[in-house]
Amino acid sequence: MEIAQNFMGPGATKTMARINENGNVVGTIIVNCEGFPETTTLDSLTAATYSTHMRNLSHHANNSLKEIDVTDELVVLRLVSRKTEAVVTPDHEFHLIAVMRRT
Amino acid sequence: MEIAQNFMGPGATKTMARINENGNVVGTIIVNCEGFPETTTLDSLTAATYSTHMRNLSHHANNSLKEIDVTDELVVLRLVSRKTEAVVTPDHEFHLIAVMRRT
Repeated sequence: MEIAQNFMGPGATKTMARINENGNVVGTIIVNCEGFPETTTLDSLTAATYSTHMRNLSHHANNSLKEIDVTDELVVLRLVSRKTEAVVTPDHEFHLIAVMRRT
Repeated sequence: MEIAQNFMGPGATKTMARINENGNVVGTIIVNCEGFPETTTLDSLTAATYSTHMRNLSHHANNSLKEIDVTDELVVLRLVSRKTEAVVTPDHEFHLIAVMRRT
């Protein structure tokens, strides 16, 4: 699987390549702090749609956790749906999204 | 662990008891369609806080998934934070929330 664009340095590329090696992974997206996909193995439209929604959702989840306990912080958000599975890992600068097949 | 209130019938009680048997589970909540905790093993305040936030989040997640693919639907939402782990299973009438220790 080819990584379409990359402005992220070798560390991120290596991590993405490692995740993409997993047979169940459909693709990965790295979303920048402005909410745009920076690096992805998916097509641009899918990447853009996932980026917007998953980033909003991860912010919402983080805010909810902080309202329950102000010292808490979101580490991983996993959405299992009828068709796919998405894992969002938030960071201060970037969000990593992995879209997977249902196992 | 005692199930504080129960208006749900034996099926739900059995499922909750089975989940609570897991040593990592702090407590479970069944949230009704109005967003109020119906049955819980947690204290009322914690249950109410989790119910509100997790139900909103699960609706947001479901809407996001439907914007990506209108035929898709949320099955499980899992939030891993620094301190805890929460699993939300949405249903038409009820949401089941399980709060767990980080492993």
